[in-house]
Amino acid sequence: MREVYMDNGATTKVDERVLDSMLPYLKERYGNPSSMHNKGIEAKNAITDARERVSKCLNCLPEEIIFTGSGTESDNLAILGYARKNKKSGSHIITTKVEHHAVLYAFEQLEKEGFRVTYLDVDKDGLISLEELSKEITDDTLFVSIIYANNEIGTVQDIPAIGKLCREKGVVLHTDACQATSYLETDINMLNVDMMTINGSKIYGPKGIGVLYRKKEIELEPLVYGGGQEANLRSGTENIANIVGFAKAIELVIEHKKTEVLRLEKLRDYMIEELLKVSETKLNGHPNKRLPNNVNISFVNIEGESMLLLLNEKGICASTGSACSSASLEPSHVIVALGLPHELGHSSIRFSLGKDTTKQDIDYVLEKIQPIVEKLRSMSPLHDTVKGLLQKQNTGEKND
Amino acid sequence: MREVYMDNGATTKVDERVLDSMLPYLKERYGNPSSMHNKGIEAKNAITDARERVSKCLNCLPEEIIFTGSGTESDNLAILGYARKNKKSGSHIITTKVEHHAVLYAFEQLEKEGFRVTYLDVDKDGLISLEELSKEITDDTLFVSIIYANNEIGTVQDIPAIGKLCREKGVVLHTDACQATSYLETDINMLNVDMMTINGSKIYGPKGIGVLYRKKEIELEPLVYGGGQEANLRSGTENIANIVGFAKAIELVIEHKKTEVLRLEKLRDYMIEELLKVSETKLNGHPNKRLPNNVNISFVNIEGESMLLLLNEKGICASTGSACSSASLEPSHVIVALGLPHELGHSSIRFSLGKDTTKQDIDYVLEKIQPIVEKLRSMSPLHDTVKGLLQKQNTGEKND
Repeated sequence: MREVYMDNGATTKVDERVLDSMLPYLKERYGNPSSMHNKGIEAKNAITDARERVSKCLNCLPEEIIFTGSGTESDNLAILGYARKNKKSGSHIITTKVEHHAVLYAFEQLEKEGFRVTYLDVDKDGLISLEELSKEITDDTLFVSIIYANNEIGTVQDIPAIGKLCREKGVVLHTDACQATSYLETDINMLNVDMMTINGSKIYGPKGIGVLYRKKEIELEPLVYGGGQEANLRSGTENIANIVGFAKAIELVIEHKKTEVLRLEKLRDYMIEELLKVSETKLNGHPNKRLPNNVNISFVNIEGESMLLLLNEKGICASTGSACSSASLEPSHVIVALGLPHELGHSSIRFSLGKDTTKQDIDYVLEKIQPIVEKLRSMSPLHDTVKGLLQKQNTGEKND
Repeated sequence: MREVYMDNGATTKVDERVLDSMLPYLKERYGNPSSMHNKGIEAKNAITDARERVSKCLNCLPEEIIFTGSGTESDNLAILGYARKNKKSGSHIITTKVEHHAVLYAFEQLEKEGFRVTYLDVDKDGLISLEELSKEITDDTLFVSIIYANNEIGTVQDIPAIGKLCREKGVVLHTDACQATSYLETDINMLNVDMMTINGSKIYGPKGIGVLYRKKEIELEPLVYGGGQEANLRSGTENIANIVGFAKAIELVIEHKKTEVLRLEKLRDYMIEELLKVSETKLNGHPNKRLPNNVNISFVNIEGESMLLLLNEKGICASTGSACSSASLEPSHVIVALGLPHELGHSSIRFSLGKDTTKQDIDYVLEKIQPIVEKLRSMSPLHDTVKGLLQKQNTGEKND
């Protein structure tokens, strides 16, 4: 059976060149970077080199790169670390309703610790309002965290403009760029951000490695304490293989960015156009301010999980809701934030394309999906209810 | 030049069988375990299988195993996580003066958060006193964390007896077993511990993976928030390759434990005996309650770092002070806790043997070390001072 992996938003296959760069550090170059002998020095040099290469990719200083264990950990280090370290300077923090859980739940934790949180609304396409953000920032506002490109619906926020506003207002901006890294601008100086999260496993690097860019003036409280690695911000023996692999991965995605964006945008738009020909479908997320690899469609009257299972039977890997907790059956908070009723949140499917995706893959999905839609709709007792909801939605009526 | 790696306490070379078990998850089995398709299920099954295998090694339940990113993170999750979650039950916590920095600095952080900490003394061999521990435990005592086998001097605490005492007193016990896993009892039921830290990179597994065993009744507050992986205690996409590698690594060290302990104890005792023939030397740590692979010797009037550099020139990898911060030049807090003056703390060298260490390796070190000692002593202006200090120490005089 053909295998079509369209879940690159959940995780990506490690690029062979990335794995090749890692292997020496899983074999003969096994030293601890803190050790004062050749094996240690070799490992330390590998980290120094990787840090420099990553900093070049982001156009920042090497000491502004912190290697962590995941995108989630980077988000938490930025958010919990900044808030806890700087709580004397303010008790109000701002994020959006469409963040990844790694950001949302870190904010919820800070609420428990006494911070006041504003969760910005988004419009029907998933965009925040700069005006609303501007209004919400007060003298007590400590920092803002806004996702660069949404992991579910692919909507891209205008981070440079948001960053400019935050600079004018004197508040720190963090962005979760896990989905954005491969396709959007990552030059720190163009983005006006103070902290940025990147995840190795979304850019054809290994799992278990993240990066937090943090402007050198920014002070953070660590999440873990110990040997003082990573400028005392992330103690624990460094995962050198993964650090080296991350550097290779980000170099590769940045090298191929321009051509990949053009190639994938074409494929994406073709896939969206064809899927919208299926009756009673709706594109979620912004029509063009979206990730080049993201296709998110609601199929009226279809339970997303059922569709995933039938797609899976045809060798097609896709996802519903948030990639990182799609095993949970809660409705997607992102789809809900768009103003779609819960029932439609349950009907969304995300196809996230990647560097190995071809037009043939898309045609295969298109061929298989029509009969699956028909089959599922014929089985559903909810068809008319949900159809009605969608019609109200499309005519701007309030869902009741 | 011959290469002799005697820094297995700092980190170990990944066993080829471990790497072989990891590779499929760095190649074709790249799914995200939270995804609801074959690639995700395959990844999830791999974690389930690894968790079961690890739990068998420790004789505990699979759900009592939490995979983390390092030994340091496991220590922090146990200590910070338990204290923060259970602070209503007590504000006093106990540890020792000879812990790894991952434990010590987590306790220091808890002091800042309002906990009162007792740091237990150790005797000249590095052992705590059960009586002292018993006296220190009060109704307000929340938990105790005591290192199983010391990473610097190799002294092994009587964890089963300590655990029994803690159970009688109704306080929770955590132990850092990072150095102990390969050589000592790891059956949870024999140890009477409630939480235990293990580190992949010390047992011929990869770097960037740790385990925290925690008895199922124990509630912890996470260090990071997000997708809810690892029973909501360690969010972030799982590092499947490392998890699978960890399972293989711990199976292998437990399979070979009995024979390796006998083999290494012989080599260790031979090495200690021969090194003590060098004039003005002192064994640090307990003469027989010590790790089978640990040789820690102070060479009077020698600056440890200088010795490391000269050993390194001969291809010999060893360490001073704590493995994980030996690049720092502070005196070892462990050696200081033994009652040795700082000057002797600076003179200690740790040789940590491993599964690839042979008698030939030891003979090579013994052959090279005598001229190095002579050379360094001939250059030192401190010789007579430190020699005097050691003599006072050996005769039980108090250092002034």
